[in-house]
Amino acid sequence: MSARKTFGTQPCSIARTLDVVGDWWTLLVLRDVFRGAHRFDELKSGLGIATNVLTVRLKRLTDAGILERRAYQEHPPRFEYTVTAKGRDLYPVLIALLQWGDRYMRDESDPSDAPPRVVVHDTCGHAIQPAFSCPHCRSEVSAQNARTVARADLPRELRNARSARAPRRNA
Amino acid sequence: MSARKTFGTQPCSIARTLDVVGDWWTLLVLRDVFRGAHRFDELKSGLGIATNVLTVRLKRLTDAGILERRAYQEHPPRFEYTVTAKGRDLYPVLIALLQWGDRYMRDESDPSDAPPRVVVHDTCGHAIQPAFSCPHCRSEVSAQNARTVARADLPRELRNARSARAPRRNA
Repeated sequence: MSARKTFGTQPCSIARTLDVVGDWWTLLVLRDVFRGAHRFDELKSGLGIATNVLTVRLKRLTDAGILERRAYQEHPPRFEYTVTAKGRDLYPVLIALLQWGDRYMRDESDPSDAPPRVVVHDTCGHAIQPAFSCPHCRSEVSAQNARTVARADLPRELRNARSARAPRRNA
Repeated sequence: MSARKTFGTQPCSIARTLDVVGDWWTLLVLRDVFRGAHRFDELKSGLGIATNVLTVRLKRLTDAGILERRAYQEHPPRFEYTVTAKGRDLYPVLIALLQWGDRYMRDESDPSDAPPRVVVHDTCGHAIQPAFSCPHCRSEVSAQNARTVARADLPRELRNARSARAPRRNA
């Protein structure tokens, strides 16, 4: 752990986020808590992960405020882990990983290798493929039609706006 | 590299995706290519990354079909890296990481620590906060109103549907 470089000091929200959640186990632990595994032993057997590795990951997620640890038994002391509001807001990261994997990390010639899980939207009860959409024009947001711009390069009046008109791309 | 466990064999699209893109440098290299850095030296200086580390990451991204390497000069040979269609489809992962970092990985008491970059939607020209939305009912998709369900647990007629009605959650 200590050998890796920290990105937390970069002025970049992607780098800073990866500094907290950017290792495989951390996101897989979070995935399983979302799916209903809350106790250490459930997570350990579900993930096939070593006790010490899981302990470190859970501590990191708890320290970062992404998971919360609660005692569910006193004698002997036993704890369960639940997702905080901060953790719930990582759901789009997992959805985005899931969708890309469904599309590219399967053997399409193997009919038994259909996407293993389906996103169900309880609001309307449908199995869906969520997409990033624009709160202004409602159309899809993708690499083909969106880009990130340094705040300093935006006209001053737009820098603090949540949905403000930006200059068109030149390229 | 070789010491880490592979997740590629798990029947889970999240795990399989993390197996390819789930390390910090890989996603940060991709971030910078999206932002217009295409040449080795540009990426190296922008990322502050060791030559050998960048070489390994670029090879991994190229082997995975996420980046494409093209010669832009013959004497001496020089290459540039561009994002493939498969790579462009990882954009939602970066957007999701960016948004979470904008929300949680800043010092909100420091006015100079505003989110460093803003998403601009060229389709409508606005600076936006994209959100995952449902292609069926158009409302937002979040951890509060969505979940993933094992395909085998869906009624048979829904297993291959892209937007089909699913049973309501009991819990």
